[in-house]
Amino acid sequence: MTISTDVLIIGAGPSGLFAAFKAGQLELSARIVDSLPQAGGQLAELYPYKTISDVPGIPTIEAKSLVDNLLRQIEPFNISMHLGERVETLSALPDKTFELHTSSGSIVICRAIILAAGLGSFAPRKPDLAGIQLFENKGVEYAIHDIEKFRAKNLVIAGGGDSALDWSMQLATVAQRLCLVHRRSDFRGNPASAHKIKQMAAIGQLELLMNANVTRLGGAEYLEWVEITRPEGTIQVDCNYFMPLFGLSPKLGPISTWGFQIQKGNLCVNPATCQTKVPGVYAIGDLCTYEGKLKFILSGFQEAALAMHAAYSYLNGGKQAKIRYATD
Amino acid sequence: MTISTDVLIIGAGPSGLFAAFKAGQLELSARIVDSLPQAGGQLAELYPYKTISDVPGIPTIEAKSLVDNLLRQIEPFNISMHLGERVETLSALPDKTFELHTSSGSIVICRAIILAAGLGSFAPRKPDLAGIQLFENKGVEYAIHDIEKFRAKNLVIAGGGDSALDWSMQLATVAQRLCLVHRRSDFRGNPASAHKIKQMAAIGQLELLMNANVTRLGGAEYLEWVEITRPEGTIQVDCNYFMPLFGLSPKLGPISTWGFQIQKGNLCVNPATCQTKVPGVYAIGDLCTYEGKLKFILSGFQEAALAMHAAYSYLNGGKQAKIRYATD
Repeated sequence: MTISTDVLIIGAGPSGLFAAFKAGQLELSARIVDSLPQAGGQLAELYPYKTISDVPGIPTIEAKSLVDNLLRQIEPFNISMHLGERVETLSALPDKTFELHTSSGSIVICRAIILAAGLGSFAPRKPDLAGIQLFENKGVEYAIHDIEKFRAKNLVIAGGGDSALDWSMQLATVAQRLCLVHRRSDFRGNPASAHKIKQMAAIGQLELLMNANVTRLGGAEYLEWVEITRPEGTIQVDCNYFMPLFGLSPKLGPISTWGFQIQKGNLCVNPATCQTKVPGVYAIGDLCTYEGKLKFILSGFQEAALAMHAAYSYLNGGKQAKIRYATD
Repeated sequence: MTISTDVLIIGAGPSGLFAAFKAGQLELSARIVDSLPQAGGQLAELYPYKTISDVPGIPTIEAKSLVDNLLRQIEPFNISMHLGERVETLSALPDKTFELHTSSGSIVICRAIILAAGLGSFAPRKPDLAGIQLFENKGVEYAIHDIEKFRAKNLVIAGGGDSALDWSMQLATVAQRLCLVHRRSDFRGNPASAHKIKQMAAIGQLELLMNANVTRLGGAEYLEWVEITRPEGTIQVDCNYFMPLFGLSPKLGPISTWGFQIQKGNLCVNPATCQTKVPGVYAIGDLCTYEGKLKFILSGFQEAALAMHAAYSYLNGGKQAKIRYATD
């Protein structure tokens, strides 16, 4: 069944729920899709019984009660929710609408999208290595924030895309020793970068192991070595850090290729509107970033208001929504 | 008695109260000053018994209960409040601190200021003319937003400062007839502007009545004429619009001369920090404006969080406050 709506909200956490409230207030039709079986996002999934005391006007509240309140607040607007449904495909159609297919077969046509999918929407893709989580932040790193941390250290990087190539080139200049491991015989990344990497390997600025996989990790508390398996056999390489740079694995699915600007796993938005680089597509809550971004529940609420007012204007030929105060 | 505090919050409305909460969370000392005898700003003063239903996570609440909740939320931080005390003087000292004197004789030294004084902090100064409110927006205008509205109309402007001079020069080019009325024999505004106005009067581009006051207004529904009184007697001048441009009357008192950027009575701030043009001075809530500003209680809460995080950084040599979640 195909359903039409003005605004599709992806994510039923606090930001997504309040976005639905704002849609209702502005008389826009809206639906929410979330892969989790219940509304509330992290509040319901990670810490339902935690007491929250920094939501303005609510001295203390249990996380799950805050979700209940947000659900009661949108009741007057009859917002439909597709819970337990994953986003399977999401396409931009030529008439400027978007078409969503969910894992349960729902098809939704919408004119604007609010991405409120929370933390981890663009999580690092992790290798399937036994016990890797034991070494996370103890030698295993999925992202590089501070190059100085790696000065004079032994590093193993795995991957064949731009991220692995670019960081290998850069870190080779500070590391004591850097070994780049890639499971294929050619690179996925920029050919010029791939060429440069091979040159650097030829003159000994880094080690390059192609057709190779990291197959084990070892160390007492911190990572001390990795095992690398190649067709000719297995070697053990001492290292301080192992960085699998396999890119981001977007929970958001196909829209990750829409040309968004991503910074440390967050979508960059215009702080005045929460619009992404794509017209009609907004990002709010823990998923979005901008100068001065604070990761509070409160901030997600404010972003929901900004995004929905911007969406209203986008859907109404630039007309500003009148500020309506919900008082009796 | 002189009291020192990190942050002085001017205004005990919802934005100011939540700013105090954020100060407490960030372990900054704070005090609140408000000229009203009770906390809550508009909520307590204008509509204490109205039901509010657009504060996120609170389906419905009476305005005065929302104030009670905000007060309970700051209880753990022992924030001192100076209620019923007007700001008398506020000075920037050479050591980058600020010194406040209130109408009750309190003296507060602080290192940062959050202005949360609400709507009307910079209201137009209105003439004391019987029945003027009956013609407001029906011929009486305190601010000019769209020049075209005045094309080919008969205008009377009153005032002797820059605002009156500048608008007279500009509107004389579109009006059918423009009469500038000033109660003194010389102008307060820029001498070059005053000279230009006199030249324009000499060649008949506008009429200039010095030592004159508008003393009555008349018209059926809309303004039709004003009475102007001079030492030599009284005349009646037909007009479509009467614009008393006497400047803004800042409730905030002396700081209005600190070089803030003011737009339609609101203080312009950097949306990432809510800082005004003056380092260490922030504006939040209905008082502030920036691209995309929404005048919701919610927005004031978010601005309070942004401003207090920015103030923390300002007071700590640029160090970012750690995001602390208030959960158990």
